[in-house]
Amino acid sequence: MRSVGIVAEYNPFHNGHLYHLKQSKEISGSDVAIVAMSGNFLQRGEPAIVPKWTRTKMALLSGADLVVEIPYAFAVQKAEIFALGSVYLLDALKCSSICFGSELGNIHPFLHTVDLLKDQEETYNSRIRFYIKQGVSYPKALALAYSDLEKNKDTVDLSRPNNILGYHYIAAAKKLKSNVEFFTVKRNTAEHDDQTIHDDKIASATSIRKLIKQEGNLHRIRPYIPEATYNEMEAYYRTYKHFHDWEDYWPYLQYRLLTMNNDELNQMYDIEEGLPYRLQRAAESSGSFQSFMENVKTKRYTWTRLQRICVHALTNTTRTDMNSAGETPGYIRLLGMSAKGREYLNKVKKDLPLPLVSTVSAFPEALFTLDRRAALVYSQVMKEPARSDLFSMEYAQPPIMAD
Amino acid sequence: MRSVGIVAEYNPFHNGHLYHLKQSKEISGSDVAIVAMSGNFLQRGEPAIVPKWTRTKMALLSGADLVVEIPYAFAVQKAEIFALGSVYLLDALKCSSICFGSELGNIHPFLHTVDLLKDQEETYNSRIRFYIKQGVSYPKALALAYSDLEKNKDTVDLSRPNNILGYHYIAAAKKLKSNVEFFTVKRNTAEHDDQTIHDDKIASATSIRKLIKQEGNLHRIRPYIPEATYNEMEAYYRTYKHFHDWEDYWPYLQYRLLTMNNDELNQMYDIEEGLPYRLQRAAESSGSFQSFMENVKTKRYTWTRLQRICVHALTNTTRTDMNSAGETPGYIRLLGMSAKGREYLNKVKKDLPLPLVSTVSAFPEALFTLDRRAALVYSQVMKEPARSDLFSMEYAQPPIMAD
Repeated sequence: MRSVGIVAEYNPFHNGHLYHLKQSKEISGSDVAIVAMSGNFLQRGEPAIVPKWTRTKMALLSGADLVVEIPYAFAVQKAEIFALGSVYLLDALKCSSICFGSELGNIHPFLHTVDLLKDQEETYNSRIRFYIKQGVSYPKALALAYSDLEKNKDTVDLSRPNNILGYHYIAAAKKLKSNVEFFTVKRNTAEHDDQTIHDDKIASATSIRKLIKQEGNLHRIRPYIPEATYNEMEAYYRTYKHFHDWEDYWPYLQYRLLTMNNDELNQMYDIEEGLPYRLQRAAESSGSFQSFMENVKTKRYTWTRLQRICVHALTNTTRTDMNSAGETPGYIRLLGMSAKGREYLNKVKKDLPLPLVSTVSAFPEALFTLDRRAALVYSQVMKEPARSDLFSMEYAQPPIMAD
Repeated sequence: MRSVGIVAEYNPFHNGHLYHLKQSKEISGSDVAIVAMSGNFLQRGEPAIVPKWTRTKMALLSGADLVVEIPYAFAVQKAEIFALGSVYLLDALKCSSICFGSELGNIHPFLHTVDLLKDQEETYNSRIRFYIKQGVSYPKALALAYSDLEKNKDTVDLSRPNNILGYHYIAAAKKLKSNVEFFTVKRNTAEHDDQTIHDDKIASATSIRKLIKQEGNLHRIRPYIPEATYNEMEAYYRTYKHFHDWEDYWPYLQYRLLTMNNDELNQMYDIEEGLPYRLQRAAESSGSFQSFMENVKTKRYTWTRLQRICVHALTNTTRTDMNSAGETPGYIRLLGMSAKGREYLNKVKKDLPLPLVSTVSAFPEALFTLDRRAALVYSQVMKEPARSDLFSMEYAQPPIMAD
């Protein structure tokens, strides 16, 4: 059985994801699609609009065969670590290939770029340091340093968000000495972060979430999502009366920032000198997450990095916590599978290099501290009994079966 | 000018408090009444129904001349420390006397009891240790040890809550070598913690709060409170749409308990081994503060001690924080004064042994860390802009003037 790996967030699953999933199976010639998906908090430091369980169902009902969770310690991270954790999981699950969406849609320039950056590593790093010293943000420094390198083959435009992720998947595989083969599918129409809608079937997840928020219902997004997504979103809303948004978490973040002492703030993961004071002053005077972020934003920090720091403060994730999570994931947390996914899993199960977790309660609690806190915080914005229901799924929910 | 000191919480100010205030001035022959009042969180580990500013106004409009705040580090404490902090402030403000309400209403047995316990200190302490070892709560052990002592004079029944406080005020004055004279007024009708109403004019603060909660308005409590209290309560509710109750703070306490790691929990003030695990398990499974408290309660911990621990967890008050607050208050925070109070203050001002704080912003921020966090947490349950308004009073509100 050939398997293709996909790294995703599905926030929510839409027609573009459906296209990517189908294409991935087709161009890689795979029988099963394995998805490494972030949990309740996402790579760009945001709560997912619906929990991982609902997003798992969406994926399974639209053609995914196996969905595993990217642990919090790798999901809420910059692209490099996010990619390393994801590729590690897919490689551990014996994926024959990995297929990612990109603005470019041609795999060779990605491979050349990874080689190029490896060959010119020293120059590249010294250029990065140079730009950082000039006071530009890290991603910006990367882009500038990259543009300074000599290129004699086709390379990738690393200013595009999905190209960057694609680059990091391949670099991660190289670092992990994995033999997984790479494919890429050109993203159709919708830009990753696009807030407007260009096509009558395809819209970015960002614009879909924006529409839901504006309209207060799901009606307008129906053309852009598979029927299964619509049904799952609708069912979730009917039960929990809630789609999750940063603003819901704002009172907790504010409370947290304002009650931490300076030592505690300095221990938070990814926080740098000077930021604690800035965060606290902004928290005191801001009435919403949006205005807080606008107050705290500087050239030095990207919006997404600040959002991730906020998620870490919210979940009380310290540098020590992150260090003890290790350099690669320590377990494979199974969120759901199709009949075919199950068949595949039965074949590879005995050779897995990591424990396969289908019931959390069967493993030491300490293994899941960060994921558990993330689940707790995620459900905290809901009223009882919804809060308890959703939180208890973290322990009690067996992998979701489709078919 | 003779001055009488009063220790109070005024939660809210009612006819019983009015009676006590008038009687205190009368029997002590005082021109001014000075009130040491707890801030937004109270001795028994509860949020006050309305903020300290509103309660200060109530007191001033009903005959108090000077209201100063018992700092958080002394207010949210067992009776002994609460009394020490309060008496220290009143003594520092040169009160000629202190007058407290008690179930007994006769001062001599209080004085005898303080002497008795001083004389038989060793026996008393060894009996306390004996009962603690038997697994009974600290207050219960005190009461049992006390009943074991030989008494050849009239002593006080220390099983009654106001008698206990009275005893501690006198013991504190002795410890502080203060010459302040003591008076006591017999409490009329309403027991301290009484939830029912016996008299047509007097009801306990507890029963008044219960009525407000039940009825959702102030109508039924009108007979039991001065007109000024009614007006202030009504104005507060009109502006903020909110009376403060533990249940409002429950989501934050739950969030806090469930995101702290074990080290952090163990650093909280007054927490003992074994309790962190118990608190976290109860927080996971409880849907309200009431049910949480019922789940966490044991014979070993009194309800009020557990509530205080919860307030400390909520405000992130560690053992280190409390230690650095010192053994006695480090400042006199002025909340409000009448014309006569101002006159009095002008007379004693130059001899005060402590800094007099009328504008917080004129002093180092570190001095007020705990009070500031308490004010922050207290206002966190309100919607914007009420939250910002109330919180900014912590810095900006000058002492309230009544004439």
